[in-house]
Amino acid sequence: MAQRNALYAQSGGVTAVINATACGVIETARRHRARIRKVYAGRDGIIGVLTEHLIDTSRETPAAIRALRYTPAGAFGSCRYKLKGLEESRAQYERLIAVFRAHDIGYFFYNGGNDSADTAWKVSQLAGRLGYPLVCIGIPKTVDNDLVGTDNCPGFGSVAKYVATSMREAGYDVASMARTSTKVFVLEVMGRHAGWITAACGLAAEKAGDAPHILLFPEVAFEPEPFLARVEATVKKHGFCAIAVSEGLRYPDGKFLSESGVRDAFGHAQLGGAAPRIASLVRNRFDYRCHWAVADYLQRAARHLASRVDVEQAYAVGKAAVELAVTGRNAVMPVIVRKSNRPYRWTIGVAELEDIANREKKVPRDFITRDGFRITAKCREYLAPLIQGEDPPPFRNGLPVYAKLRNVTAPRKLAGEFKI
Amino acid sequence: MAQRNALYAQSGGVTAVINATACGVIETARRHRARIRKVYAGRDGIIGVLTEHLIDTSRETPAAIRALRYTPAGAFGSCRYKLKGLEESRAQYERLIAVFRAHDIGYFFYNGGNDSADTAWKVSQLAGRLGYPLVCIGIPKTVDNDLVGTDNCPGFGSVAKYVATSMREAGYDVASMARTSTKVFVLEVMGRHAGWITAACGLAAEKAGDAPHILLFPEVAFEPEPFLARVEATVKKHGFCAIAVSEGLRYPDGKFLSESGVRDAFGHAQLGGAAPRIASLVRNRFDYRCHWAVADYLQRAARHLASRVDVEQAYAVGKAAVELAVTGRNAVMPVIVRKSNRPYRWTIGVAELEDIANREKKVPRDFITRDGFRITAKCREYLAPLIQGEDPPPFRNGLPVYAKLRNVTAPRKLAGEFKI
Repeated sequence: MAQRNALYAQSGGVTAVINATACGVIETARRHRARIRKVYAGRDGIIGVLTEHLIDTSRETPAAIRALRYTPAGAFGSCRYKLKGLEESRAQYERLIAVFRAHDIGYFFYNGGNDSADTAWKVSQLAGRLGYPLVCIGIPKTVDNDLVGTDNCPGFGSVAKYVATSMREAGYDVASMARTSTKVFVLEVMGRHAGWITAACGLAAEKAGDAPHILLFPEVAFEPEPFLARVEATVKKHGFCAIAVSEGLRYPDGKFLSESGVRDAFGHAQLGGAAPRIASLVRNRFDYRCHWAVADYLQRAARHLASRVDVEQAYAVGKAAVELAVTGRNAVMPVIVRKSNRPYRWTIGVAELEDIANREKKVPRDFITRDGFRITAKCREYLAPLIQGEDPPPFRNGLPVYAKLRNVTAPRKLAGEFKI
Repeated sequence: MAQRNALYAQSGGVTAVINATACGVIETARRHRARIRKVYAGRDGIIGVLTEHLIDTSRETPAAIRALRYTPAGAFGSCRYKLKGLEESRAQYERLIAVFRAHDIGYFFYNGGNDSADTAWKVSQLAGRLGYPLVCIGIPKTVDNDLVGTDNCPGFGSVAKYVATSMREAGYDVASMARTSTKVFVLEVMGRHAGWITAACGLAAEKAGDAPHILLFPEVAFEPEPFLARVEATVKKHGFCAIAVSEGLRYPDGKFLSESGVRDAFGHAQLGGAAPRIASLVRNRFDYRCHWAVADYLQRAARHLASRVDVEQAYAVGKAAVELAVTGRNAVMPVIVRKSNRPYRWTIGVAELEDIANREKKVPRDFITRDGFRITAKCREYLAPLIQGEDPPPFRNGLPVYAKLRNVTAPRKLAGEFKI
């Protein structure tokens, strides 16, 4: 088979380890020169492909690419831009193929969540219909851990480690002053529809009385009265109460606690502010001093506290994507398969993109205790391996040193602008 | 001189390294058995002394005490309880001396901020007046870095390292998605009246364009218009704008942006919510997507990312406090003296408690740029050494392992309860 170029694009919210996946893709492609000439990266994800802003990663040194392994966020830029159905967004899909054709792209690697798996699958369908020879590979990424077909998603383990560590540390803080000062602490975490990150906070509690005492999952409709009763009982029993709340917590009528009215390009409500709402509820009922934190981007950017397992898996799916591509597998995604829990062993498997596209894996009911406020032993068994090990970045002058690439744009080959 | 007991108490908000100071006090006292029999610790700080809840630290193993060096928060509990003037709070001061007498306390180590330096000084005065032989030593601690008489305060370096790292990481995140998504990010940090932590966020920016772009100090009255103009100019120039805001930011009329009406025991307003206010201001003016985080206790509990310099200094002031005490120095505080910047060298000096009590060190005007939005080179030179070096705690199962002491209470010797 001929030597052709590859295109890699990041999609959606970035993570502490998505660049480790990019590192895996590029380093592995460089070892398959007979098949892959250059790896281009979409500037700001798929938008850069549509507008023909392609970054030529061959202009980066091996050291720069290696540094991606410990650099958070998206080195080439990412975007929240969802292509719709093949008919509805026909012009966009055809434009993608036109750009691929112009740059002799034979391999398309799309690194994202379930929306991106859908896009990658549709591109593969259209390429087939148009007779354009193209291998499309999805690569899993999402802090939300909500992709089906994979045991877990790269990006999740590191945010899980961060929120569990932060909850443990804040729990020590509150415990030491609760008898005379703050008694209730609320930490708001990400996870719009799936409570995996909320669940991960629960890893901080190893013994009865440890923080956190209450988890508020997006999967469990929020009823103020049982919640407030549990807060009071916890303060009476343990002296303080530490709570983790999902940004996506909803009332039984489906309304978000934190609804702001703003929606993103995927039509998802832009959330933030569940923690202060919960704190207000507690303050209005009890005479408890209350503090709250909103981790927001800190949690998904915290490469300084990445999970080593997560970094290794993020790299491995990037590497596997290239290996699948050069063997001609199309419309698939490398996924993580759990082989055993003790010791934790995993391997890379392969799933069909069509089976992953647009589906969402929520926290199963048997991972949440009957009262809705804790994780079960089964959940803990699932989560615990994913936060194992540390992989600190290099530090200079007391701060982590992260890579900044040159990001040289490839010469454009198509005439005119494409409006998106 | 006879062998007598010592009393150690933590005061006010806890930090990532105040237990390293406790470790320094206890380990050093154990090396001075000829002078110091036992170290008691006040359960929940000074309140435990008033109520005669003294923890007998001799019941802890050397390994447990050693583990305090890497354990955040207050191992014996702390409190926000301020003794007033000697006449006004006469009963409390006399009670302290009565408890000291009952337990043969010859050394009082009070580990806190400027309020605590004041209390320690007053106790030394009263003991003198009553003819009770007592050595009173203040030990500096505060994340706010607002103590006079010391170059910097143990506790500050670690929170500075945490906020600068977090700002750098979130900056990478926002930069990678700003062209199509979030353009403005706001991080709220602690520092009620002094903007040292806000200033520390500025360490994350090493080159033009790096996050953060705007710092909002409590020392600089907040004027919305120049701020909004700077946000717009920054987004136009760099594509995004990262902002650090002090919880204590005020309008020119002195009103806090985040005033909640709740006050703590020291009469300070309990703050929180400057970040969402700033985000709302930006959203209401511009069509910029905006995210915000409130670090709250996460920042002062983040022992996983402690500054090694800070840990060493925290231990050193504890050790020095005991060494000063056994040589008979009274009513003093060991302080940190900077010897040089490059390389950073420091030593322990001694200050009079009377000179430290109730004073506050704000960020000097020449540490802030003329426009009020950045730190100067002089400020950077001061701050940079304080975040140097890492000192990670041990990890087990992917999470940091922190000490929990037995905290055995000493038998009470006084009859009746003391109401506080």
